[in-house]
Parts: sequence; C-alpha cells; structure tokens
Amino acid sequence: MSARNAFYAQSGGVTAVINASACGVIEAARRCPEKIANVYAGRNGIIGALTEDLIDTSQESDAAIAALRFTPSGAFGSCRYKLKSLDANRREYERLIEVFKAHDIGYFFYNGGGDSADTCYKVSQLSESLGYPVQAIHVPKTVDNDLPITDNCPGFGSVAKYIATSALEASFDVRSMSRTSTKIFVLEVMGRHAGWIAAAGGLIETQNIPVLILFPEIEFNQEQFIAAVKEKVAQFDFCTIIVSEGAKYPDGRFLAEQGTRDAFGHAQLGGAAPVVANLIKDATGYKFHWAVADYLQRAARHLASKTDVEQAYAMGRAGVEFALAGHNAVMPTVKRLNHAPYAWEVGMAALADVANVEKFMPRDFISADGFGITELCRQYLTPLIQGEDYPPFEYGLPKYVTLKNAAVAKKLTAFEV
Amino acid sequence: MSARNAFYAQSGGVTAVINASACGVIEAARRCPEKIANVYAGRNGIIGALTEDLIDTSQESDAAIAALRFTPSGAFGSCRYKLKSLDANRREYERLIEVFKAHDIGYFFYNGGGDSADTCYKVSQLSESLGYPVQAIHVPKTVDNDLPITDNCPGFGSVAKYIATSALEASFDVRSMSRTSTKIFVLEVMGRHAGWIAAAGGLIETQNIPVLILFPEIEFNQEQFIAAVKEKVAQFDFCTIIVSEGAKYPDGRFLAEQGTRDAFGHAQLGGAAPVVANLIKDATGYKFHWAVADYLQRAARHLASKTDVEQAYAMGRAGVEFALAGHNAVMPTVKRLNHAPYAWEVGMAALADVANVEKFMPRDFISADGFGITELCRQYLTPLIQGEDYPPFEYGLPKYVTLKNAAVAKKLTAFEV
Repeated sequence: MSARNAFYAQSGGVTAVINASACGVIEAARRCPEKIANVYAGRNGIIGALTEDLIDTSQESDAAIAALRFTPSGAFGSCRYKLKSLDANRREYERLIEVFKAHDIGYFFYNGGGDSADTCYKVSQLSESLGYPVQAIHVPKTVDNDLPITDNCPGFGSVAKYIATSALEASFDVRSMSRTSTKIFVLEVMGRHAGWIAAAGGLIETQNIPVLILFPEIEFNQEQFIAAVKEKVAQFDFCTIIVSEGAKYPDGRFLAEQGTRDAFGHAQLGGAAPVVANLIKDATGYKFHWAVADYLQRAARHLASKTDVEQAYAMGRAGVEFALAGHNAVMPTVKRLNHAPYAWEVGMAALADVANVEKFMPRDFISADGFGITELCRQYLTPLIQGEDYPPFEYGLPKYVTLKNAAVAKKLTAFEV
Repeated sequence: MSARNAFYAQSGGVTAVINASACGVIEAARRCPEKIANVYAGRNGIIGALTEDLIDTSQESDAAIAALRFTPSGAFGSCRYKLKSLDANRREYERLIEVFKAHDIGYFFYNGGGDSADTCYKVSQLSESLGYPVQAIHVPKTVDNDLPITDNCPGFGSVAKYIATSALEASFDVRSMSRTSTKIFVLEVMGRHAGWIAAAGGLIETQNIPVLILFPEIEFNQEQFIAAVKEKVAQFDFCTIIVSEGAKYPDGRFLAEQGTRDAFGHAQLGGAAPVVANLIKDATGYKFHWAVADYLQRAARHLASKTDVEQAYAMGRAGVEFALAGHNAVMPTVKRLNHAPYAWEVGMAALADVANVEKFMPRDFISADGFGITELCRQYLTPLIQGEDYPPFEYGLPKYVTLKNAAVAKKLTAFEV
C-alpha cells in the first residue's frame, strides 16, 4: 500500500500542551514516510477541512515542530464548530470526503475534548456510511479533565499545577496582609460543568493554608459557606476561596449570573469571583481581593506539569501508532498503574464509549461539607502536577514558536461554513 | 561600641521578592555580630514595633533565612499603617522609642514603598527630635515602580515579567481561537497611579502580537480606543488589551467605577477589565475574554525575574552596609550604568528626597497615540525582566518557607494601635 496523507486538527479551547500532542503526531508521522506521506493540518480546526484550508506541515523544520512541545495555544488555530449528524447535515460530510479524496487523506487525527470526540466518531463512520476509507483517531485534550475512560486528560495537569501554585502564592500574600488589610482572597477558575480544576486548589491545604472550594457539582449553600469562611478566619485570620466558574445556586443559576445592570441598563457580565467576594464582604465586613485567571490558566506553558507534557506528547504519538496498526474510531488514553510512585501507560478506548460522556468529580473526592477535597482526590491529583518543564527564555520572555503555516494549494471550489 | 540590635519590618503590599531583601538584611547582619547583635522583625510591619510584637530572627536557621530569597509574600507579616507627623501623633513616636530602648535597637530597616519611605524618614529624625540615637534606612520595595531617584524598584521586574509572559501566552491562545470565537482578550493589571506594570504588556509587541494599553497617565478616550481596537482586529483578527486598574475617564472617574448595582441595589465592585471588555463588545460585537491577575501578579515568585531577585537582595544587604558605615535617613538605590548589556550598581539616596515623591511614566515612554510603549520604554524595561530564578519544587508545588516567627519576650505594657 502506498503512503497516504494524514489530516490533523485542533478543536475547542486550546491548552498549554495541545501543541505537544501535535508535536507527537507530526514527529511520529515523520518517522514513517512509507506510510504517511505528509501531515496536513486544518487551519482553525475542522473548518480548515471543510474549506480546504490545509496547512502543509512539511514546510516546517524539525526544530520548529520540536518547539511545539513547549509552545502553548493551538499552533494551527482551533475552532468551536461541531458537526451535526449525518442525517442533519449530509452536505458537510460529503464535503469532507471530497477534500479527503482531493488530498489523498487516509488518516484523520482530531485533537480535542468531548465534542470533538463526537465529531471524530462521526468521521470514523464515513468509510461505512459513505464508502470512503479513512481511519479516525481522537487525540484527547481538555483542561476540564472530563473525558471518560482515560485516567486524566492532557491539558488538565498543567492547569492544575498553575492553579495550585497561584493559589499558594496568593495565599502567602494574603497571610502577610491579613492583620490590617485583606483577609479573603477569591480565585475564580475554569470548569463550567466539572470541578476538577477547582479541586486542584485544595492541594495547598497540606501547606497549612485555609482553603474553601465552590464546586459546580455541589449546590451553593450561602449560609453554610459564610459560616465556613468565618470559621477559617477565626482560626487563621485569612482564607482563600477557589470558585469554579460553574458554581451554581440550588435553582441552577450560575453564581456569576447576578442580573446586574450598568448605568445604561446593559446586562453586566461579571465573574463568579467578585460575586463571592461581595457576598463575604456583606456578611462579615472582611476586606477582600479577587482574581479571575481565565485564559492565563490554560495558556500558562511557563508552569506546565512535566507529567502533563509527556502525556500530551505520548497521546499524539500513540494516535499515529494506532492508525498505523489499522485502528479506527479509537482514542489513546492514560492508564494509571500506580499512585505513588506514579506509573502509567498508554491505553485505548473505543470512541463509541467516549463521545458525549462527561466525567464529573466523584462525590468521594469532595469532603463531606462540600468545600474541600478528600485524601482520595489528593492521591489522584498529586502525580498529575509533578515535574517542571520550562520553555526556553530569550530577553526575559518565553521563546515560543510561531509556525509558517503555509497553505496547501486548493483543488476544489469554495465551500461556505 | 558594643553591638546593638536591628529592627526590620515589611510595609505595604508585599511582592514576590520583598523576602529576598529581608534575606539580604539578615544575612548581612549575621556576618557582623560584633556590630549587630540580633535582627528583630516587626510582626505585621511597624505595628509590631508599636505593640512590642517582635520576632526573634535568631531562632531561624541559616537555611530558613536563605529560603526567604525564593519565597514570595512578607514572611513577618506586613501592614498598611502610616505614622502621622510627630506633631499629630507624638504618642506613637514616644512609644517607638520606648520599644527601641527596651530592646536596645540602634538600627531601623524599613522595607517598603513611598508611604514607608516617609515613615522611615520620620523615624530617622528621632535622634534629633526626641534624643534617641537610631539609624533609619529605607529598603526600597514596590511593584508600582514609582519611587524616585532609584532607576527601578525591587518587586517591579518580577511583576513585569509575569505580566508580559502571561499576556504573551494568553495572546497565543486568543490567536488560536479568533476564527470562530474570542477575538479580544483584556488583562487588568495593578498600578493605581503609575502605568509601569501596564507598560510591561507592551513588551510582547515585538513578537507580532497586537497590544493596546490603557495607562493611568493617559485620559481614556473611548472613541479613539474603539477605533484602535477595530484597526488591530482588521489586521490581526484579534487584539490583546492591557488595562491598568488606575485607568480613568477624563472626568477622573476610574473605569472600574461604573456605579453598577446588583439585584438588591448593592454597589457592585467590578474590575476595569470587564468594563473594557463590555465596551468593546457593545461597540463591535467581538467575542471577548478577560482576566484580573490581582495578587497572582505580585506573588508569582515561580516566574520571578533573576535581575529583580538579585537587586532585591542587594538592596537589603546595602541597607545594612550603609547603616554600619554610619548613615542615617538614606535608601539604597539601583543605579543603571548601561542598557545593553545591562549594568547597574548600588547607589544611595537621601530619604528627604524620596519621601512623598511619585515617579510616573514619562510621556516619551508612551507612544504618540497613548496606547503603546516607545522604544525608549522598551530599552528601559527589557533588562528588568531578564533571567529566571525558579524556586525549588516538591510534590509539584513550589517549596516556600514559612518561618517559626518566635516572639521576643515583651518588657513593656500593652499599647493600642
């Protein structure tokens, strides 16, 4: 069988290590030119495939591809775009096949979270449903850590390390100031549905830092929360609060949705952190500060977890190995063998079992009062933030790579998405 | 002359490197036991002196003191407490002398910004005004970088490195997402009066990142700003905005003060970042994300500037050397000798010239349109973020020191502050 081309695309919110997976895919493909002629990357994810906007990765030097390993963000661009079902939008699938045929694409690597696992699964069925031979492999990525089967998701470990470190540093700061000034520090973190990132803030408790966590999985009970804050301040004179952007009132409203209006009557987009800070202020009078880390947390490659970088790379490489071994409709996974010393290996999951399943924090990872993590959770999280993997610096700043991203010549007529 | 004791205290907002100055003071003092018997640290700054709440630093091992060099926050506690003038509050000065006498304190090292330089200057006058012999040395510290005479202030370089790195990483992230999602990223940074920290965000422009900065020194012109945002997005498809917490409307109101009310009519404390993000959204429809770094930026020892750490340490050590050489009412400074290659040496300023003077961004450091930095500014800032100085890590987190902070036995009656 002669070599065919591979398509690789990044999907959804990017991370500090999704490019490490890209690096794993491209380096593994370059080692097998007899089977994979070239890797075409989709410019801005699957949109690049639909619009035939393909990036010729063979134009990039080995050094540039190696630099992807320490460069955050999506080097080829990502997108938020979910393919509908074949029945609902047959036109898009037919277009994909048209593009794949035009560029002799036999391998489809899709690097993303839950939604993209679903897209990838649909593409994997194209050989059967539309008679085009393609092997589709999903490469897992999500800071939310909510994919099933895999022990954890590349991207998460680095965010967890960033949040735990930042919360530790800010807590030391507040502890210094609490005598005459700030007693409460509120840090808002990502995780609209699952509290994995928020849980990482709990890792600093072992350093004698008082932490309360507001998880999306636990209904917000204002009275119990304020009581818990007062108790911590009574004991420590300060308290750090980690609030998930997904924290909710019992009626399902997000804490961040306060229905506030500005002077012109426009709805005011706040964050959960200022809301929580003001609740505490109203109830206790304590001075506060709050921070919203937002993209800083998922882009913070300067503080990536070495474990996470290695796993992200391994997932990309394993994706190619699975494809070359003839697999279709699968996803490499991280399989934990031991907590401490930490040991893991690459596993394999069927995409049919991955698509559209979300993994939440188990109740026994959350303390009985709902505001902390348990020893089980700590055991789970600790290995994931292990090790540092600093990028190179130049003139005081990280030296990240920006690729040439040269376009492959188009062969087809335009297509609107 | 027999050895006397030294008093050291941390004042105002803490930084990633103020403990490096403490380390410099204590290590230098330990090298001269014939002149400085012990360093007593004020628990929670000057309040510790007033309340006779002194920390016996001789109880700390050399290793613990050395670890201060890589530990953020104020290890002895800080405070926001400004001594009034001798005329206005003679009682406090007399109490200070009472405490100094009781513990044979002959050296007063005060580690802080503008306000504490003023306090330190007042203390330095005590020998003359109240007949107690004490040498008062101010050790400069402020992330705001607004002290006069010194080329820069310890604490600033690390925040600048953190803000530039974070803005770079988040900009890479947004660039990945701009095709179908976020086009605007707004990062709010500290600096209520001076735009030095905001200026650091401009350092990433040389990496082909579109950045607009809102300085406290420049009146906010909404129309020009929106036009500039549109221009950047037309060219790059995304734009990063760095907004100082001190950015103001022409009428003097802070951008952050929107007079917004929640559902219960409470004044809503927002930040400048969501305000700017919503202004852009209303004018252009672009999707946005925003972050407020708050304490994360000044506590981020994990990303400290090596230059900053070295200068912070040197300022502490020089403070002791100045005292031992017989100086009073002075502050060590950073004297720049050359931009590139960067060279500096320790200088000395008279406190009379430092107290109550704020140094703002010179107009020629800000671009003509008011939204960026000039080459002059870049030349000034670049050396200050040079070099990395990572703390040790354990179990995936920085291993910062928490001191024993054993109290010195009290000899006096209580004093209320």
